Amino acid sequence: MKPLVFFLPGQEDLAAKLTTHLDGEPGNVVTHSFPDGETYLRVASACRGREVVLLQSLDHPNKKILPLLLLGETLRDLGANRIRLVCPYLSYMRQDKQFQPGEGVTSRYFAKLVSTYFDGLLTMNPHLHRYHSLSEIYSIPSEAADAGPDLAKWIKSFIKNPVLIGPDGESEQWVANIAGKIQAPYRVAKKERWGDREVRVSMPDLTAFRDHHPVLIDDIISTGHTLIQAVAAIQEQGLEAPICLGIHALFAPGAEENLKRSGVQRVVTTNTIAHSTNGIDISETLARSLRNF
Amino acid sequence: MKPLVFFLPGQEDLAAKLTTHLDGEPGNVVTHSFPDGETYLRVASACRGREVVLLQSLDHPNKKILPLLLLGETLRDLGANRIRLVCPYLSYMRQDKQFQPGEGVTSRYFAKLVSTYFDGLLTMNPHLHRYHSLSEIYSIPSEAADAGPDLAKWIKSFIKNPVLIGPDGESEQWVANIAGKIQAPYRVAKKERWGDREVRVSMPDLTAFRDHHPVLIDDIISTGHTLIQAVAAIQEQGLEAPICLGIHALFAPGAEENLKRSGVQRVVTTNTIAHSTNGIDISETLARSLRNF
Repeated sequence: MKPLVFFLPGQEDLAAKLTTHLDGEPGNVVTHSFPDGETYLRVASACRGREVVLLQSLDHPNKKILPLLLLGETLRDLGANRIRLVCPYLSYMRQDKQFQPGEGVTSRYFAKLVSTYFDGLLTMNPHLHRYHSLSEIYSIPSEAADAGPDLAKWIKSFIKNPVLIGPDGESEQWVANIAGKIQAPYRVAKKERWGDREVRVSMPDLTAFRDHHPVLIDDIISTGHTLIQAVAAIQEQGLEAPICLGIHALFAPGAEENLKRSGVQRVVTTNTIAHSTNGIDISETLARSLRNF
Repeated sequence: MKPLVFFLPGQEDLAAKLTTHLDGEPGNVVTHSFPDGETYLRVASACRGREVVLLQSLDHPNKKILPLLLLGETLRDLGANRIRLVCPYLSYMRQDKQFQPGEGVTSRYFAKLVSTYFDGLLTMNPHLHRYHSLSEIYSIPSEAADAGPDLAKWIKSFIKNPVLIGPDGESEQWVANIAGKIQAPYRVAKKERWGDREVRVSMPDLTAFRDHHPVLIDDIISTGHTLIQAVAAIQEQGLEAPICLGIHALFAPGAEENLKRSGVQRVVTTNTIAHSTNGIDISETLARSLRNF
């Protein structure tokens, strides 16, 4: 039987694409916000015994988590069989240790919460730093899909003679991977972080690539400060304005405007988070991962 | 040992009063909102082996619940002993049955969530309609404090010759209770609800009370529509403009302005939810209930 794909308001576009690639059936949820900020939910699709996929990207997770948990409980009460959460952007991955006394390890707490309510988790390129895999903190079957092949395909289709540039050491592994797929050269900058908003980017020698089209690739575009510094550092070496590719279009307030003012040629993101810069569709990759786990 | 009283931003005033009446010690939490909407938490008070009270009113619960659960987990990881949640306004009490097929019973789901994370729950005048007590849905020790005596005391101190008026049948039991405490007459209107925002109030004969000061009493002031109709119905019978007392100052957008335009003499609420209309302090009542359960 076809899986039923449910989602909450804001995920319409990606949900439609995912449903198509999954050969699934759209699930129907009626929601309503009461004047006091509570959420009303009614599932309008028969789901007894059905395989359920619940799509919800978790940027700005604080306001999204409770309706999501309540919908999960409602689906279970209505007899849904397996309920897997598809969370193209997964939140609370950064606080992966106690850096200061008194801090909680929120990534673990969040993982425990999600693991209590759902039967499986699919996400895309989660921020794995100290953890090697999601299974270190998620006790349910979990899978991390990779947007790398979609980014590689996009670059190959649209950019002649590219040089790929990673903004920090963490990005090396997968920028190298994308570069390998399309046989393009790549370089990786070093990033030093000073608090939430201050970063300094040290760019390697790019002068050999002055006839290339620079493509900056980052996993999460949040404040954009790293990319803005990287854009400047690339142009200082006599290369043209780079294109910026991002997987997760998180965009803090003002970030998009600041990035556009930085002289970047164009910003293109995947649709893990719905945003005006979305240009790379990852729904087929998500659907493939969902069939395999 | 004195209990440690923790709270999240927005509860400063009530937390200080509750801490005093409990003879407790203020707990210190450092919070920070990341640009992407996640919350950082650091507990700056030693809490190993300590009795902990966590104060958080749950109006607009969707955005508040996750930081609250994360703080609960952090306190537990840091070795706090018993962690009781003091939630002067308790959310998700209205959906107490499946009214339509496909609906979830969100009051049960919310209760299960809170019961998983905390060791006890104290609230004030929760919206108990089909449930007889919190223990029907909360699996942890729970207690519902009553603001009635505080309202009675306020009326006795400030209003000569009052007549108390309840806006609907549900309010009868405790409007009668307050009236009994101060030996004042009372009457109760009938309310018919049409959707979220439409109500019709049918007021009993009040002409015998034209020389009394009318005091309208409601448990939750949300849209204010019921009270606005009641204010008009009271004045139509030749009584002076009533004072409105509310326990929970939920106030939907625009509600306060509409209520003030209705000709009400004054709106006074308790501080279960911080609001400009707060005039009745319930912190001592909360502290007393907390010592007894």
